[in-house]
Amino acid sequence: MATFDGRIGGVYAISPTPFHADGALDWDSLDRLTDFYFETGCDGMTVLGVLGEGVKLDADEAVDVAARVIARAAGRPIIVGASAPGFAAMRALTHAVMDRGAAGVMIAPAAGLRTEDQIAGWFGGAIEAIGPDVPWVLQDFPQTTGVVMSPATIARIANAHPSLKLLKHEDWPGLEKISTLRRMEAEGAMRPLSILVGNSGLFLDFELDRGVDGANTGYAYPEMLVQAVRLARAGERDAMHDLFDAHLPLLRYEQQLGAGLAVRKYVLKQRGIIASDAMRRPCTPLSDTARAEIDYLMARLTRRLEALPA
Amino acid sequence: MATFDGRIGGVYAISPTPFHADGALDWDSLDRLTDFYFETGCDGMTVLGVLGEGVKLDADEAVDVAARVIARAAGRPIIVGASAPGFAAMRALTHAVMDRGAAGVMIAPAAGLRTEDQIAGWFGGAIEAIGPDVPWVLQDFPQTTGVVMSPATIARIANAHPSLKLLKHEDWPGLEKISTLRRMEAEGAMRPLSILVGNSGLFLDFELDRGVDGANTGYAYPEMLVQAVRLARAGERDAMHDLFDAHLPLLRYEQQLGAGLAVRKYVLKQRGIIASDAMRRPCTPLSDTARAEIDYLMARLTRRLEALPA
Amino acid sequence: MATFDGRIGGVYAISPTPFHADGALDWDSLDRLTDFYFETGCDGMTVLGVLGEGVKLDADEAVDVAARVIARAAGRPIIVGASAPGFAAMRALTHAVMDRGAAGVMIAPAAGLRTEDQIAGWFGGAIEAIGPDVPWVLQDFPQTTGVVMSPATIARIANAHPSLKLLKHEDWPGLEKISTLRRMEAEGAMRPLSILVGNSGLFLDFELDRGVDGANTGYAYPEMLVQAVRLARAGERDAMHDLFDAHLPLLRYEQQLGAGLAVRKYVLKQRGIIASDAMRRPCTPLSDTARAEIDYLMARLTRRLEALPA
Amino acid sequence: MATFDGRIGGVYAISPTPFHADGALDWDSLDRLTDFYFETGCDGMTVLGVLGEGVKLDADEAVDVAARVIARAAGRPIIVGASAPGFAAMRALTHAVMDRGAAGVMIAPAAGLRTEDQIAGWFGGAIEAIGPDVPWVLQDFPQTTGVVMSPATIARIANAHPSLKLLKHEDWPGLEKISTLRRMEAEGAMRPLSILVGNSGLFLDFELDRGVDGANTGYAYPEMLVQAVRLARAGERDAMHDLFDAHLPLLRYEQQLGAGLAVRKYVLKQRGIIASDAMRRPCTPLSDTARAEIDYLMARLTRRLEALPA
Repeated sequence: MATFDGRIGGVYAISPTPFHADGALDWDSLDRLTDFYFETGCDGMTVLGVLGEGVKLDADEAVDVAARVIARAAGRPIIVGASAPGFAAMRALTHAVMDRGAAGVMIAPAAGLRTEDQIAGWFGGAIEAIGPDVPWVLQDFPQTTGVVMSPATIARIANAHPSLKLLKHEDWPGLEKISTLRRMEAEGAMRPLSILVGNSGLFLDFELDRGVDGANTGYAYPEMLVQAVRLARAGERDAMHDLFDAHLPLLRYEQQLGAGLAVRKYVLKQRGIIASDAMRRPCTPLSDTARAEIDYLMARLTRRLEALPA
Repeated sequence: MATFDGRIGGVYAISPTPFHADGALDWDSLDRLTDFYFETGCDGMTVLGVLGEGVKLDADEAVDVAARVIARAAGRPIIVGASAPGFAAMRALTHAVMDRGAAGVMIAPAAGLRTEDQIAGWFGGAIEAIGPDVPWVLQDFPQTTGVVMSPATIARIANAHPSLKLLKHEDWPGLEKISTLRRMEAEGAMRPLSILVGNSGLFLDFELDRGVDGANTGYAYPEMLVQAVRLARAGERDAMHDLFDAHLPLLRYEQQLGAGLAVRKYVLKQRGIIASDAMRRPCTPLSDTARAEIDYLMARLTRRLEALPA
Repeated sequence: MATFDGRIGGVYAISPTPFHADGALDWDSLDRLTDFYFETGCDGMTVLGVLGEGVKLDADEAVDVAARVIARAAGRPIIVGASAPGFAAMRALTHAVMDRGAAGVMIAPAAGLRTEDQIAGWFGGAIEAIGPDVPWVLQDFPQTTGVVMSPATIARIANAHPSLKLLKHEDWPGLEKISTLRRMEAEGAMRPLSILVGNSGLFLDFELDRGVDGANTGYAYPEMLVQAVRLARAGERDAMHDLFDAHLPLLRYEQQLGAGLAVRKYVLKQRGIIASDAMRRPCTPLSDTARAEIDYLMARLTRRLEALPA
Repeated sequence: MATFDGRIGGVYAISPTPFHADGALDWDSLDRLTDFYFETGCDGMTVLGVLGEGVKLDADEAVDVAARVIARAAGRPIIVGASAPGFAAMRALTHAVMDRGAAGVMIAPAAGLRTEDQIAGWFGGAIEAIGPDVPWVLQDFPQTTGVVMSPATIARIANAHPSLKLLKHEDWPGLEKISTLRRMEAEGAMRPLSILVGNSGLFLDFELDRGVDGANTGYAYPEMLVQAVRLARAGERDAMHDLFDAHLPLLRYEQQLGAGLAVRKYVLKQRGIIASDAMRRPCTPLSDTARAEIDYLMARLTRRLEALPA
């Protein structure tokens, strides 16, 4: 199993799951995609998240996809999305992928949780179900789950569960939340907690300014995420923003909730990484107009990157 | 496979799934429960719905529960809850239980669907996934799914899918919806469609008055549901309401969203049908006060039934 | 101004606002309605709540309605619903009705509040806006507001604001919440707080068993609410439940969210209290079938009350 | 009254309401703001929307703000946000501002509407209440209202109400919706309907490509919106995207739901248009970090605009 502990930083790519046009899993593309993420400098990968169409796989397929990526990653950490409405399915998938070498699992709170006690209680049950020794990532994504977790609630969960290794922050607006969490950490109200940001990276530039450890998102040019984190670490603030701004028009286009998956698969296909941008149903395919818009954005990005100082 | 076609009426019990105190499946109790429903006069059963803690079973357990009940039912129709966020899991479970003799599956729309086109399109995909020959039940339960289907949307789905055999109506307030659907049916705007009511039967009395075909709910005294349908069919309106009103205090107590499952399991245990009222996590167990309240309601019900004319 | 302090108990009727068929305010009916509530033994009234179609009145009408009822009540306490999305309108209405002798105002949290800090902060702003000397009622009605307040959040608000005089509890399921609040009060975690229950009184029987101080709801037979509270105080538990159960079929019919207002106005009209059951738009009028159902329930109620011991 | 009919295009600025630090209305800043929008080339203004803190004004203040802007605009069209939960308040405000010379009102559907019939019925009631001769703008903003309107629903409303003059489109993702509406218009399924886009303009670039008539949003550099519309009309696609992309980092920062108002007021203050960035409560003020981030974005924008070809 890959190490996944201590201060976790850099870029963990959120990976889509490639399919053939008929909906069958495309194993060759999955291998190429795995290689691509690590060749571009990513530190790890997350599979079977929302972007990974995890809910569209049956139980056996899910384990197979995770196992394939884990094997291909050759020791680098792979996180597996294990969110499920019930703890039995969550435990079953968790144990299956941990047995196959996953670094940990990612868990988002179940829809419908509202009060701090409900949320903390639910995570207590989830961690009891998967076992307190399994490293896990807390996904904080209210736009999708409908569950709003205050900094105090996150701190309570972090303090209660040493097996929580990482916060995937994708609340929006979320900049002040990051600052509050970092302050609570500094004041001892929350134990040290690694934070990687999601929400497609729409605020990655200022999130890095505010002290997050990196990104855990699926933007189809992961090399930008990797480079932005490096520039931020090097104190090259302006250069980081210049790079980020060059990508922002396309990144914003990818960030469309629900539609973003189709955009990303199309970009990855145009870049030659995956063979098809097919999605499993239910899905909303891209229109021809949208494809043309993405081509236009990619061409503009290329030109703009050429104009940046090397 | 059991017949499940034409005008479907009477009572289809929504069945909980019995567990031992340690969370293991309690097969003996499941057999007793199956026998109980048919001995009390039910026409069929629905397993693995919300009440059946379907989401808390892993994939193999779900198939095993369905298969056990189907075998025990000896030819009477068993419906299996197959709602899932993705079509792959829905198809896998559907095929597994149809192979084992299920009469059909029950499908609720995925959370987040809003417009008529979204809803109709989603069901189009679902039926394509499970196959157009599998009989199915449309569950209309906005309080749980968040999806509101107008009568026009239901008619559109019914007219598009001959394999839709039954509407499980549990919208609330829902009386006018029933009258509208029956009027659309009479006017030819919707093909004939069987309607059984859920929402714990809180309005069963007037729903029968308004022409539904029966009940598809989990009230722990199914003999009342059976008798109420018979009285309604016989035109004994006052007697039907007298019987219903006698049960209403307890029925209302069972109807509490989220808490109702615990109440039902406790009543079934007190009645000697299942051995334990254990639920799998996440769940909210009954307090001692609540148990005492239920005992009180059961005692009051017994006295009140004795006072009714035979 | 009427006294509205200390342990507040008994029945505060939630009053509808009577209109003529053309939508104009019906002042005579409003006077009769006010007299009716106090003649049946109510201790106070709440006007301009959801049931009172408060949002359908313009600013001047709202003040006029409150002033009319306050004058007619001749010193008995009148609460005025003052919930509003902004604090300016809330303050304007509050000051206008307090100047005219209201006992206090009722405030529900604004839609969209989620975390404990958000909720507590919002109430801090609201109380600052209306002034810390104005007595107020906290309305806890998640089914309508979408805001879920845990017992801890309620205690925090109660402890922070001495001007909070009453909790209108209408969470559902809500029995355990009452027990928890009473336990927190006994343990000193929350200062003593009067609790009256709403949600149409659907669980009034057991809520009284669990120690609430009375009812603050709009059931169109307020004499039942008054008598139930008296029986509970006298320790006549069985008699209280007998009375409640006799009313439950109609009470449940009135409790339909959104549709209940029309039912209540119709019952009050049939009882001769208000001249018309007209509502202002947007509204959903009763169908002829629904009116007949209500007539049937009222006739059954009369017979059943006759059969109860005097 | 200003003309507001036929094909409406260009830029209608969504205006904030300036306050002094103590919360009092700042009339001088409101005048400067009105002048600013028209000097930068805007064609009209919308006041008292969400951005305008309309719900935080009491009834008299709302009319005064609208009247002040209308007078200052000297005949150019001013739209007034009139959304309200009840039709009485909507009518009262509408008549008051139309009497004072408003060009029309903007109405968003009430929260809680779900089916097409509910939505269309609600607008029928609203238009009956304000009168069928009052020009109005339909605001389609599901992220805030929770009401999702399909293209078919919008067409139904447009066809039923000739007084609907404009669609403020801010659904997200929303590009395909625009294309669908334009296709329905071309095919005669919807009468010609002007469309201006909101959602802070986050997709203005491609929305212009897809044929909208302009923008109706509150970005604090309205001169960009004006110029982008002109470039689009002139067929200068690349130049339009170049300009838009230069603004995107700040525009995206302003687009944060809930937090955006504070950002805009701060930018307008830094630009010397309004005297204070004070908001009325409930509100979330900017942190010092956020102010510094905005300053940084404004400085970067200035440099980047200098680098664009004139």
